Amino acid sequence: MKTSVTVLGLGAMGTALARAFLAAGHPTTIWNRTPGRSPELDELGARRSEDLTDALTAAPLVIACLLDYASVSEVLRPAATALDGRTLVNLTNGTPAQARSTAEWARQHGSQYVDGGIMAVPSMIGGPAAFVLYSGSTGAFEQHEAALAALGRATYLGSDPGLAPLHDIALLSGMYGMFAGAFQAYALLGSEKVSPTAFTADLLVPWLTAMLTSLPRMAADLEYGAEPGPAGSNLAMQAAGFVNLIQAAEDQGISPELLLPIQRLLEDAVAAGAGDQDLSALVPRLATNVIRAG
Amino acid sequence: MKTSVTVLGLGAMGTALARAFLAAGHPTTIWNRTPGRSPELDELGARRSEDLTDALTAAPLVIACLLDYASVSEVLRPAATALDGRTLVNLTNGTPAQARSTAEWARQHGSQYVDGGIMAVPSMIGGPAAFVLYSGSTGAFEQHEAALAALGRATYLGSDPGLAPLHDIALLSGMYGMFAGAFQAYALLGSEKVSPTAFTADLLVPWLTAMLTSLPRMAADLEYGAEPGPAGSNLAMQAAGFVNLIQAAEDQGISPELLLPIQRLLEDAVAAGAGDQDLSALVPRLATNVIRAG
Repeated sequence: MKTSVTVLGLGAMGTALARAFLAAGHPTTIWNRTPGRSPELDELGARRSEDLTDALTAAPLVIACLLDYASVSEVLRPAATALDGRTLVNLTNGTPAQARSTAEWARQHGSQYVDGGIMAVPSMIGGPAAFVLYSGSTGAFEQHEAALAALGRATYLGSDPGLAPLHDIALLSGMYGMFAGAFQAYALLGSEKVSPTAFTADLLVPWLTAMLTSLPRMAADLEYGAEPGPAGSNLAMQAAGFVNLIQAAEDQGISPELLLPIQRLLEDAVAAGAGDQDLSALVPRLATNVIRAG
Repeated sequence: MKTSVTVLGLGAMGTALARAFLAAGHPTTIWNRTPGRSPELDELGARRSEDLTDALTAAPLVIACLLDYASVSEVLRPAATALDGRTLVNLTNGTPAQARSTAEWARQHGSQYVDGGIMAVPSMIGGPAAFVLYSGSTGAFEQHEAALAALGRATYLGSDPGLAPLHDIALLSGMYGMFAGAFQAYALLGSEKVSPTAFTADLLVPWLTAMLTSLPRMAADLEYGAEPGPAGSNLAMQAAGFVNLIQAAEDQGISPELLLPIQRLLEDAVAAGAGDQDLSALVPRLATNVIRAG
């Protein structure tokens, strides 16, 4: 009774996806450009196909998880007619622009297109912590929502296929920023041989958890407009204090490279007269059509 | 019965400190270079002094909260003899090196020195969310721990006076990294007019909260040594995927400037042969004595 699924691409992530579909009882056809990858899937009951057209026509739901969108295009173009009437869910990492152009190409070949962003590493797929963002054809998403739930919690963002990669990349950008801050913290502590595990448990995680609570206010400021910031924490104060973050790194023999663009953004905002504003005032300044000071 | 306290510096933070000491019942003398600042403290019972030597000798516990360490030096040098036998708790923002040299100067003038890093904005002082890091004279900290508790939760880090600013700056670096990631996320969403408040509540905060749980493992890798990372998430995979974060920003008219140094750090690590490692391998590469690729 479970929907048949075809998984294209058996890298670490594609293999994890196929494994999750099999674990949830979906008849699963697997295909990989280089044959014979992930032999453990055969023992789990996968039907391995070495012919792409055969693989595509084996199921109404085709999942692509390839290296990049160029690979998606190279792989699917020769077999495009086999996509007619099927749903293509593309979980390959890419950009909103790539998702939109692939969706348009798929539509021209009679396929319903859903783009997805996987917010998990392969080992998390099918577990409670995995979630996947989807956007594109509403009908196709609703039709296959139950099957897609085998991979992780599914969040549908709207009919524009670019929305899933946009949100995916926004979340990853947020994560890498947070990790970059942690790298800087660990490098500073390392310069004095302070234990990073005690620091993380006692100070860093509680501190960042507390600071996360300021994001909803920052978001509200962006959505509804902000009052000038309090004098004790406005951008002018923060730019003045930021000098110590750079100086301390340099004194400790640690590169300030991860912090320098944040300092430049702060100082440019102050130079442009936004010193009495709050952090949310920095966000629109990242649009490349904004004229910067300095 | 409460310890008398003198607060030097009545900017937004110094005023908040004096207010918290007064609220906790400490006889509080206040001094500011420019007289007459924060008149509301007079009504709360502060004893205002315009003579620095008088202010310093009014209490065994002197709290300095000035613009920077240059101001601390300028203010205290002419009245140094009045510090003899007192505890100086310096809560001015600065670097570990500045704290150590100020501690040495204070010691030479017969003062017990404690340095502190306030992990709060002024409006939080005296409330449950404020915490303050201290380091320096153990005896002085223990003697005045009860009084200092009026400001917020006190954490003592050790006798090296540089430890409080080191930890303070490490935590602030972590916070600014996290905020920079959030700025990038908000700028990307703004380019498509997606609501930042819904995104923050539904996706960004839960996602970053989940990603925070990887910091203890990263810290353990730093402390005890790391195994090579899993193939699905090692540095080579992350560097390959990072290209989309830059490309998507550029496509959306958003500057990738906050992300570029993270990409450079990743790519340099891969070029140096660390592609099979995990994120923790990036941290030692921030030491400026490490030779970088590219």
